[in-house]
Parts: sequence; structure tokens; C-alpha cells
Amino acid sequence: MPVESSPTYVIGVDFGTLSGRAVVVRVADGAELGSAVHEYPHAVLTDALPDGTRLGPDWALQVPADYIEVLQRAVPAAIEAAGIEPGQVIGLGTDFTACTMVPTLADGTPLNEVAGFENRPHAYVKLWRHHAAQPHADRINKLAAKRAEAWLPRYGGLISSEWEFAKGLQVLEEDPEVYATMGRFVEAADWIVWRLTGSYVRNACTAGYKGIRQDGQYPSSDFLAELNPGFAGFVTDKLDQPIGQLGDAAGTLSAEAAAWTGLNEGIVIAVGNVDAHVTSAAAQGLDPGQLVAIMGTSSCHVINGAELKEVPGMCGVVDGGIVAGLWGYEAGQSGVGDIFAHVVPPTYTHERLTELAAAQRPGQHGLIVLDWHSGNRSVLVDHELSGLVVGETLATKPEDVYRAVIEATAFGTRVIVETFTAAGVPVNEFIVAGGLMKNPLVMQIYTDVLKLPLSTIGSDQGPALGSAIHAAAAAGAYPDVRSAAAVMGRKQEAVYEPDPAAGAVYDEMYAEYKRLHDYFGRGENTVMRKLKALQRRVVLS
Amino acid sequence: MPVESSPTYVIGVDFGTLSGRAVVVRVADGAELGSAVHEYPHAVLTDALPDGTRLGPDWALQVPADYIEVLQRAVPAAIEAAGIEPGQVIGLGTDFTACTMVPTLADGTPLNEVAGFENRPHAYVKLWRHHAAQPHADRINKLAAKRAEAWLPRYGGLISSEWEFAKGLQVLEEDPEVYATMGRFVEAADWIVWRLTGSYVRNACTAGYKGIRQDGQYPSSDFLAELNPGFAGFVTDKLDQPIGQLGDAAGTLSAEAAAWTGLNEGIVIAVGNVDAHVTSAAAQGLDPGQLVAIMGTSSCHVINGAELKEVPGMCGVVDGGIVAGLWGYEAGQSGVGDIFAHVVPPTYTHERLTELAAAQRPGQHGLIVLDWHSGNRSVLVDHELSGLVVGETLATKPEDVYRAVIEATAFGTRVIVETFTAAGVPVNEFIVAGGLMKNPLVMQIYTDVLKLPLSTIGSDQGPALGSAIHAAAAAGAYPDVRSAAAVMGRKQEAVYEPDPAAGAVYDEMYAEYKRLHDYFGRGENTVMRKLKALQRRVVLS
Repeated sequence: MPVESSPTYVIGVDFGTLSGRAVVVRVADGAELGSAVHEYPHAVLTDALPDGTRLGPDWALQVPADYIEVLQRAVPAAIEAAGIEPGQVIGLGTDFTACTMVPTLADGTPLNEVAGFENRPHAYVKLWRHHAAQPHADRINKLAAKRAEAWLPRYGGLISSEWEFAKGLQVLEEDPEVYATMGRFVEAADWIVWRLTGSYVRNACTAGYKGIRQDGQYPSSDFLAELNPGFAGFVTDKLDQPIGQLGDAAGTLSAEAAAWTGLNEGIVIAVGNVDAHVTSAAAQGLDPGQLVAIMGTSSCHVINGAELKEVPGMCGVVDGGIVAGLWGYEAGQSGVGDIFAHVVPPTYTHERLTELAAAQRPGQHGLIVLDWHSGNRSVLVDHELSGLVVGETLATKPEDVYRAVIEATAFGTRVIVETFTAAGVPVNEFIVAGGLMKNPLVMQIYTDVLKLPLSTIGSDQGPALGSAIHAAAAAGAYPDVRSAAAVMGRKQEAVYEPDPAAGAVYDEMYAEYKRLHDYFGRGENTVMRKLKALQRRVVLS
Repeated sequence: MPVESSPTYVIGVDFGTLSGRAVVVRVADGAELGSAVHEYPHAVLTDALPDGTRLGPDWALQVPADYIEVLQRAVPAAIEAAGIEPGQVIGLGTDFTACTMVPTLADGTPLNEVAGFENRPHAYVKLWRHHAAQPHADRINKLAAKRAEAWLPRYGGLISSEWEFAKGLQVLEEDPEVYATMGRFVEAADWIVWRLTGSYVRNACTAGYKGIRQDGQYPSSDFLAELNPGFAGFVTDKLDQPIGQLGDAAGTLSAEAAAWTGLNEGIVIAVGNVDAHVTSAAAQGLDPGQLVAIMGTSSCHVINGAELKEVPGMCGVVDGGIVAGLWGYEAGQSGVGDIFAHVVPPTYTHERLTELAAAQRPGQHGLIVLDWHSGNRSVLVDHELSGLVVGETLATKPEDVYRAVIEATAFGTRVIVETFTAAGVPVNEFIVAGGLMKNPLVMQIYTDVLKLPLSTIGSDQGPALGSAIHAAAAAGAYPDVRSAAAVMGRKQEAVYEPDPAAGAVYDEMYAEYKRLHDYFGRGENTVMRKLKALQRRVVLS
């Protein structure tokens, strides 16, 4: 059928933890015309490999062929759903969970696809939430602190067990043969782009946040050798690669990938990126002072600043880590929606508890919660912390606890906002993306606690829209990501406004929260750490 | 039918919160031959009088005629169930909830039975859990502290709103006409004996614990006048009465009461007593060093000592308050079984949670709870305190919380035991009575935490058996209560023995409990108090 020649489209593909989603977006105005989701056939491997080989505790692997299936299935399905011709698509952008690492041969072939390595756990993708490298992370942190490595403060003083160096060191020490065979250790965000284009460009975002690349340098081979002599060449031999800036073109679609997707060979493929970071573009939150909060089971906070500041407890600060030309800051809360879910008793639902809790006034339930059920990422960076509830009586009802838990996560966010502001990275606007923006009670509590108007992203597919915006910039339809985002992004401003009377009560409660936060979180009373240690000792004895 | 002339019996009648229970007991060996329960027709009046007159918040009244019905129904039914002849009964003893107060004319007629007073709330019995006199108790405490009244330390520094003076002051100030008409303000424990015998003897137990009678004196009229000039004569005009020692005869059964009960006129009626205190005799726990814990929805601890000591946070110490010749000490935990019940989620049961929790090892759940959901009676004496749970993660299960709550109440008991010991009232044996002795998990946790063997009372009807023992002593079948208890009481010794390995883990957890206990309970962090104040302000605004 004949189509108008003028409208052009870009495709954003968001690779999540369990599935990939492709969205077709109109370049001229950002309209989302069609989308499709494909679930990874192997999901997450936590107990065993596909052949039955057992995995240890805290392992989380994936199968890279599943990602290719998303390109083969979801992209054509999205094009069909949008009712456009593949020839109208001028570019494709991707975002991925991070830090998710693919061990490959020098040509990008995943090691688990190499004959003889199918039954080797370390030959598979280590998903972001593979946590079995904690001992390795501990050693990295201890040594970095001892040596006062200059890069350590850029990460709030702590390198995560989820990141590249901890995962790489675990491979070396637990399966030296896999390590030796591994030509490259690649962020999945870059691996998928490599598969699409045929060339390997490392994105500035994950290289900075997850790969400890600062001021153009990685940790020194001297440092790495002190961790383990065999690790000295990790950067040179496994990691280092030319850097691509976010929103630039990484290359063009290869013939092979064109066949997978049904798109034309040669269209522009954007440099890889991370889900939270592309969402900033989709939410028009790229200016300094705009904090974008992606709120779901956990929350991620991204904000740009014109200058480099060291913010206590942030996850990291990276030059061009969110958008080229600005310093990108990231912070996070380890548990948000999943703590809400944890306090829903049998026979109750989120909807019912929200309705009951919404009928209350601030302070009515008499509770304060510390929202550390999954530990505290920002600003305390301590996963040995745990949850606390104070104020329970025999009259306390499930909706009381539910509301108190929502408030606690809002207080936790306020600590982050105040810490950024105090460190010289002011927060003037709070923009929400993610599933929790659908809950008006959660949103009203956040605006009241933060005393900031809340804007919300105008899309249910924020990351995929953000990736499409990056594709449009990479394809040259706009001069840069920021101007593409201005047209194609969608934000509803000040959807929720703070109620000063509620805010006054929350100020009182926040003062109590903050006192408990500092008492239990900053070493005065280490009962949470002691209880976890006791628990481990008892379970293992 | 012919009966052997030798066996004789006594009857114990236990007046509880909702019903009265009569038990027929063989004098020779304490065997319980038959029992019967009668529920109070009016139960507890909390919302309105029988005629519909509304009551305020925190009111709790009873109707004295309901108590007489217990004598008329339960006593004959117990005799019938036991298969004995009424003529074989040589005495009857009673115990009552306390402090439960009956306003009467000078002849003992309850005011609510006086024409014109049927619709006056203050003319009815104020049940022990009538809590509407808190403002009056606050004034009594403030003034007593200011004047450094010598009796105040005998009550751990605090007079309860449940006790005689607070309730009396409320009557005076809220219904002066009832107060003026009231010839006597009588403990129900003594009123029922007055009804049985025709003469009013005040028992040493409630006079001491609830009536602030110490060293033969009540609070001075000077003190009372400073509370309210109209209250100056409260002791002389309403309270004072000859004291009867526990286990003595108060008198003999009147013709009228003989007709109610079917018993012979002239048999001995023991001095009135309180449920927890008579249980000490039934559990053979009258010697110094033996602590009897009556464990149910809340817990009460009674222990004798040879000397007078001032124990911080005890409910009171009274000369002859448990048994004549020794100082009786009382302490308590406001919430025990009712906190267990509070943490049972829908679709779970106590039985299921007990089974799951029993499969755990100490320390495995990673939690510490402060068991203050109903405030803290001993040793902090602060009902503005509230519950706390620390250590929660997304993996925390209902059985974890259930076990942690049981442990918390055991830690609370250990604080009481250690406080008594430190004050010079050593605890050498821990004897359990009450419903919770049926739960082996609770018992094992207590013995492990306390590091004391646990004995248990050998009767399900401890208070009624205790009252029967007092009747046997009063009737002269034994020289005193202690020798009667030695024969008629029943205790199983060291049913539960501490496991040293568990005890070592509990020592670690108790150290954490104690630190939180002191931090939140002794004024360093007053968040619990602030949250309750905020809650009241918000609800009332």
C-alpha cells in the first residue's frame, strides 16, 4: 500500500530483566504508534543452567540468544502494530539493564555458545542482580580505600558487587579457563549494539557508572595486580574499547541484523544506554536541577549538574553519563514498591490498602518506618541495614503500616534530595517515571514530604521512548538528544502540588525519621548489622 | 444417699472479667471434683448503661447483681458436678479482678440499685479496666512526686488510673451527688464477701496494692485536700475499714447467702483476694525466691520477699499482700498473648505459626522486637511507649515475627527478673500459670531466655483452686495458707529446662533488646511518646 514519504520513524528497544519491548515512535512529534513485548525464553537462571548444572546462592544468569529473539520478534511485531513500512524507520536505539555482563570471544560470540563451555556457569551472562561477587567487591573496596584511589569518591565511596570489576574478578578466580578464553567482557548494553552493527563501541554511561572510567582512565593495572596478579591486564585485555557518547551513532544496521528485524540495512544504530538514563530524555528531565525518579520495585534517581561535585552516598557521577556535556549523577533506593508489596497481608490487595490509607491524615497512624528492608543504597550505601517499624500498638492496622511504608520511602527520597542539594547539586524539579506514578496516594505523599511539585512522564513506555529519542538524535533528525527530547519527550508538569498543612506534619515525622536513620545507619547502634551476622552464623552452623 | 462422713470440701469462686467460676476441692488433697461457670448477663458496659445512657471513651462498668448470680448458679452447679453433699463443704473462698470498685450505701447496697440512680454511670461498678480516670491519676502522681510522698516508691513511682484513688476522685469531680450518697467505695473482692457474710472486712491485698495502704496508713487528708478540698475525707468517709489478713476468716455464711448457694449457714468465708495472688498458693509458689507468672493476654508476676525492698518499676510491694508474714511484690507486662494474637495474619493460626516458628533456631529470623504494643508496665511504667520491630527484610515471614514477639516478651520478663534480683529480691524459681503454659514453644523460649528451669501449675483452674486453699486455711483445716498450699496446691517442677546453646544466642539478642529498651524507654529518644502525641493531635484536630 502507498505511504506518504514524509513521516519518518525511529524504534526504541528496552531490554528489561525478563523481557524486551520495542516501540515505534514518530520522529516529528514523539507519538508512540505501536509496540510489542517479547519475553526471554530462559528468563533468569538462578538455580541451574539449562543443562541442569547447579548454581550457587546469589547467582543470576541470562542467555544472550534471548536478547536476539527480542530483535527478531518484538521489532517486527511493533512495526506491524504501528502500521508503518520498515523503510520509514531511520534509526534504532536501545537501552539495557546494567551492569549486565556478557563474556565473549574477541568477535563478540558469547562464551556459552562456544563448544565445550555450555555447562560452565561463568560462560553465561551475569545479570545486574547476580550478587555472588560480594566478597570480590569487598576486597576491591578495602584496597581502594587503603590506597585512597582517586576514583572512589566518585562512587559515594563504594563499588558495588553488581559492577564490572567485581564480576570480572569472580570469573578470574572461580573459572580461570573461562577468564583466559574470554576475549572481551562486554556490557550487554554494548553487546546488543555490537550485534546490530557488527562493531563494538563502548557507551560512556556504563563505562563510567559500572566500569569505573573517570577522566578517561580506568583503575590502574598496579591496583588490579594488587587484587590478584592475574587481574593486572583486565582493563587492557578484556574491557577497554573506544567510547561512544550517548546519542551518537554507534554504526549502522548490518545485513544480518536487518534480516532479524526486517529493517533496512544501513539505518543508524545509536550508542547503547541504560534504562534509567534514557528515561531522562523521555521525561524531558535533562537540565541541571531536574531530578528524574524512576519509581518501581526499587527507585533510581538521575540528575544532571554543570559541575563535578562529590555527593555522599550517590551511586556515581559520570561526565556525559546521562547526556553529553553535563555531569550525570545517579542515586537509588534499593526497596520501594517491593516493600509496599511485602506489607500486604493475605486477603488484602494494594488497591484496598491504598483506599484505606488514603482516608487517613498524616500522623494519624502513629508509626515511623525505616525503609531498609533491602538495605540502603543512597545515601548510606549499606546493605547490612534492615527495616524498622516503631509505634505499633494493638490497634495498628495493615493500612497504617502500608501508609507508613510509603511515607518512609518518601522520607528516604527526601534524604537523597537534601544530600544532593547540600553537596551543591540543587534539585528544583522532581519528575516521576515508572509504575508507581499511577498511584495518586504515593504521589501525593511524595509531593507533601518533598515540598516540591511533582511532574510525571507522559508515557507508559519511558525507557523505550527514551531509546527512540536517542535514535532520532543519532540519525541526525535533531542536532542532539536534548533538542530531540524537547520535541519527542513528554512531561506533565506539577501534576501533584504539596499541601502545606500535610507538609508541616511530615516535617515533624521526618525529623524523627532522620534521627532514627542516623542512629541506626551511621554506626551509633549497629544492631541491624549484628542481627544479620547472627542470622548467617546460625543458618550456617 | 449415704455419704462417708470423713471427706470434707471447700469451694473456691474465681470472679473474672466476663464470668465467675466455682470449683469444689477436697480438703485432704486438693483434688478438684467439679466446677461450673456462669457468665455475667451484662458482661462489660463500655458504650451505654442497660437503659441506654451513653458512656464516654475508656469507660468500663459492671452490674453487681451479676456477681450474685454466680453464687446462685455456679456454686450449686459445681456441687452437683462434684457429686457431693452441700453439708460436706466447710468453707468458701473468693478471688476477684482488681481494682474493681463498687459504690454502695453504708449497708453495702450498690448505688445503681438505689432508686433514682439507675441512669447514673458513676453509680455502677468501675471494672479494673475502666481507664477514664487517667487525668485524675496524672494529678495524683504529679502531686505525690512534688510532695515526695513516702508511699510513692512502694509503687515503683506511679499510681495507676485503675486504682482506688483515681477512680474515687473521678466520681467526686464528675458526679458529686453520687459521691455524696456513696457511703462506702468497696473493692468488689470485699463486696462479695460482705454479701456472703453480712459484714465488711477489707482484705490486706487490695488495700495495699490498690488502696495505697502502707505501714497501716493511707495517703493523708492533707494530701487529698490538695488534690481537691472535697476529697479530704475520702479515706475516712469512703474507704477505711478493719483489715483482714489473707487466709483468715472474714465471717460465716449468712442465712441469705446460704439460700443463694445451697450451702449450710455458718460455714467459714475467707477474706477476699485477687486472682493473681491466690494463684501463688495454688502453684505452691509462696516462698521467697519463687516468682509466679500468670501468663495470658497480659502477664502478672507475684513474688514474696522476707524484707521490704523498693524495686524500680514494680506495681507495688505490700506487707502480707500475697501471704501473711511476707512482703508481697507484684510486677506486670501489659501485653503478652494479645501481642502474639496481633501478629497473626489473616489465613494463619496460632497453631500453624507456632509449628513454623518452632522449627527455627534462635537468631535465625534476624529480628528484635520491643514488646510495648500495650505500653510497658514493668519496669518502665510508661503507657506512652509502643512496639518496635527491627531487622525486617523482604524475606521476613509471619512465623519470624511471631517467634520474635514471643522472644520479646521473654526478654521483657528477664528485665523484670533482673530488676528484682538487683534490688535485693532474688528470683530462684519461675512458676508459670495461665493459658500460655499450654504452648511448649513459648515455655521453651522463656526457660532459654531466663536461664531458669520453668515449673508449671498443675491445675487449669489456678485462681479457683487458690481461693479454695484460702477457704481451707480460713476454716482451720490447716494452720495457715502455706501449709494448706503444700498439700492442696499442685506444681510440676522443672518441666522445661534451659538449653545452654540457645541461651548463649539469647544472651546476644537480649543485649541488643536491652540497649533498645533503654534507648527508647528511658528518655534518650522519645519518638514513641511524640508519635502518640502527634496521633492524638491529628485525630482531635
